[in-house]
Amino acid sequence: MEQFDLIIVGGGPGGYVAALRAAQLKMNVAVVESTHLGGICLNWGCIPTKALLRASEINHMLHDLGTFGFAADNVRFDLEKVVGRSRAVSRQLSRGVAHLLKRAKVKVFDGRARLAGRQGDVHTLDVTKDGKAVATVGAKHVILATGARARYFPGLEPDGELVWTYREAMVPKEMPKRLLVVGSGAIGVEFASFYRNMGAEVTIAEVADRIMIAEDAEISAMARKAFEKQGIKILTGAKVGPLDKKDGTVSTIIETPEGRTELTVDKVILAVGIVGNVEDIGLEGTKVQVDRTHIVVDEFARTGEPGLYAIGDVAGAPWLAHKASHEGIICVEKIAGRDPHPLHPLNIPGCTYSRPQVASVGLTEEKAVATGRKLRIGRFPFVGNGKALAMGEPDGMTKTIFDDETGELLGAHMIGAEVTEMIQGYVIARTAELTEAELKETVFPHPTISETMHESVLAAWGEALHI
Amino acid sequence: MEQFDLIIVGGGPGGYVAALRAAQLKMNVAVVESTHLGGICLNWGCIPTKALLRASEINHMLHDLGTFGFAADNVRFDLEKVVGRSRAVSRQLSRGVAHLLKRAKVKVFDGRARLAGRQGDVHTLDVTKDGKAVATVGAKHVILATGARARYFPGLEPDGELVWTYREAMVPKEMPKRLLVVGSGAIGVEFASFYRNMGAEVTIAEVADRIMIAEDAEISAMARKAFEKQGIKILTGAKVGPLDKKDGTVSTIIETPEGRTELTVDKVILAVGIVGNVEDIGLEGTKVQVDRTHIVVDEFARTGEPGLYAIGDVAGAPWLAHKASHEGIICVEKIAGRDPHPLHPLNIPGCTYSRPQVASVGLTEEKAVATGRKLRIGRFPFVGNGKALAMGEPDGMTKTIFDDETGELLGAHMIGAEVTEMIQGYVIARTAELTEAELKETVFPHPTISETMHESVLAAWGEALHI
Repeated sequence: MEQFDLIIVGGGPGGYVAALRAAQLKMNVAVVESTHLGGICLNWGCIPTKALLRASEINHMLHDLGTFGFAADNVRFDLEKVVGRSRAVSRQLSRGVAHLLKRAKVKVFDGRARLAGRQGDVHTLDVTKDGKAVATVGAKHVILATGARARYFPGLEPDGELVWTYREAMVPKEMPKRLLVVGSGAIGVEFASFYRNMGAEVTIAEVADRIMIAEDAEISAMARKAFEKQGIKILTGAKVGPLDKKDGTVSTIIETPEGRTELTVDKVILAVGIVGNVEDIGLEGTKVQVDRTHIVVDEFARTGEPGLYAIGDVAGAPWLAHKASHEGIICVEKIAGRDPHPLHPLNIPGCTYSRPQVASVGLTEEKAVATGRKLRIGRFPFVGNGKALAMGEPDGMTKTIFDDETGELLGAHMIGAEVTEMIQGYVIARTAELTEAELKETVFPHPTISETMHESVLAAWGEALHI
Repeated sequence: MEQFDLIIVGGGPGGYVAALRAAQLKMNVAVVESTHLGGICLNWGCIPTKALLRASEINHMLHDLGTFGFAADNVRFDLEKVVGRSRAVSRQLSRGVAHLLKRAKVKVFDGRARLAGRQGDVHTLDVTKDGKAVATVGAKHVILATGARARYFPGLEPDGELVWTYREAMVPKEMPKRLLVVGSGAIGVEFASFYRNMGAEVTIAEVADRIMIAEDAEISAMARKAFEKQGIKILTGAKVGPLDKKDGTVSTIIETPEGRTELTVDKVILAVGIVGNVEDIGLEGTKVQVDRTHIVVDEFARTGEPGLYAIGDVAGAPWLAHKASHEGIICVEKIAGRDPHPLHPLNIPGCTYSRPQVASVGLTEEKAVATGRKLRIGRFPFVGNGKALAMGEPDGMTKTIFDDETGELLGAHMIGAEVTEMIQGYVIARTAELTEAELKETVFPHPTISETMHESVLAAWGEALHI
């Protein structure tokens, strides 16, 4: 049996970052990964979708050239090249992760790991590839970072041909003319935005009464309005009926409080959530608790079983790569005897890379109201911002929510151009427990859209200047 | 004589923002502006150049479509429309400022104001338009916000035809084929970038031994490399000889330590700095001190004369709109008996909107070294960042400089895509006197280019992950 200080099961963003940090802290580390280093995020998620969304931004711009004084004829794209570029970026990054792990002397096993019991305080794992034994490895500390997979409901199952998950949606061989996206979380909305900007007719069906249910309701309503203006059809409170496949199309009936919609499309994308990968990893006989497909952990990623930890998607929401990697670092530093701060869930930003982009951190207005605190809420629309107008991006808003008594920034919500790159300012502010005083005093550079971040804070105190 | 609580001479970003804040604080305010509300920034500076630079970004992208899987034929632009859009954005914003002032019940005088003595503690000013008296106004508090204008040297004077200032450069009637830009501060570099991206042959002549002298030397060298890669010719340590105008072209000889360059161009843009507008405003006979065309003020914008204040460009460097408006707010709040914090010069960010963009705050490495402190310096290249690769923007770097002993963030320097929108995170950190601890703990969203801000901090402590 090969012995390590730490074994990490899963080479996604949580797993490989934990391994790199552990190597920095002089641990002897192994990672067991069955498919791709970098996980879904890097290979079939965050990264390749951003490359696709860049393409759809370009396509949108190419059809709006007149606004900026430009013109071009015969504007076209080659879907194979668009998808090929996205795949190439993923490959480059996945190879990069392999290189980083190699240089850090992290041993990588290509296979699946399964807990196989404990000898003293050493957990042993069997590593197999295609059912064949590859190795038996042991370590005092094992981090489970097995990730998650798309969730399906009876009657709404993917078939890889007409009914897609994120995976097929990312590598289309041809553009669907008509598309139904089931679910309006970040994944559903990003695909809807991509396909709409590339020219498809898109319908979103969302079971909740509004899209992007994790976001502030006001932002969610603005996003809906923007998507509808772009021609995306949105059905909320929507129950999607059985999928009737015929002649290469899919027909279904969608029931909403407003009535029935009969719809025939070329493709359906399912984006109705995820389930944690807790099966076949040998949790049986351990003290690890699983709650609705997610491993229960404490603030330092510890499970109920000594020496067993879980991070990332398998350890529960929010299902975000930066949450996974940060948990990985905290978990490893704690194992190494350091004194990391626990991760505060309300300090984890969320980003959606649709057009318009959405970014947020902390409490929504609804949740802030529910705390019973007296609030101060500031809003600043992009139309009052010079850079946004100069860029031709007047649609957007920055909204901030403060505790009136303490000045604590409870939540920040942004919609519009480049907000995913800007939200970090508010995340820094929340992490450092800053109040409105420091944010008011900060000199935001002019002309930038980030000035809306300042104005929104000023607005919460009735001191906004450009509105 | 019409009496006010506060009179502001100049309606640029410092002046009009000061007026709006004063109105919020219930002062009876007047602004005297001779030309455009919004000043140079809004009418002939920050705002219209951003609209132009947006156009040049689009033009660049249109010539790089293949990279993203797109194609188009007969790509072209209509210069009149490109410039027209830029002017339209300026007009919209200038009208917006007029509207804001009107709604705030700020009285706006269209004319020039000149201090005309003091009666008790009331300063009086004569307002004239085209040499004719318009009004006599008085106030206990007068803020001078008269701005600055382009500086010229003997032999290098603009003529509005072949030799331009920023003003003609912003409204070209036709594209120059060959262009010489004298000076490589933000203004020079932005025009060089615009004209190069629109297809002109561009030479930059800079008297200092490197371009963008206000920026960190390493960033300046990266910018130079990027501009040269785009085909901009850069001459440093350059002395530009007399301008010989003949047949609608300008010829000159540029001497550098490497030798002489003879150059013939269609247009020259002068961008060699500015001088404060201190003339003809009645400073004679007051205790206001002027140092090299700039009014000397204390930390609350007070001049040597009680009741007289100066903000913005006329009060000295850095010549930035956000510095002017922040000074305006501080000055007004102090007048109103509030207790504002003085503006810390090292907390004022600087941005250059060229391609690549440059943004910075705090000390450069050279200046940090000069303090004698032991430093920790972190660097993270965009090529290690997934979003940057997905966007097709791999050229860039984030650099952070810390005090090794205290962990204070001394300076942050960024070059690459969208850095002007990102720098605010570091500005918040500096304003709140945060250290590396809070920045390390912050969860930057994935995938964003802002993750380079995290990695750079980690790199300063040898903990970077993706490099």
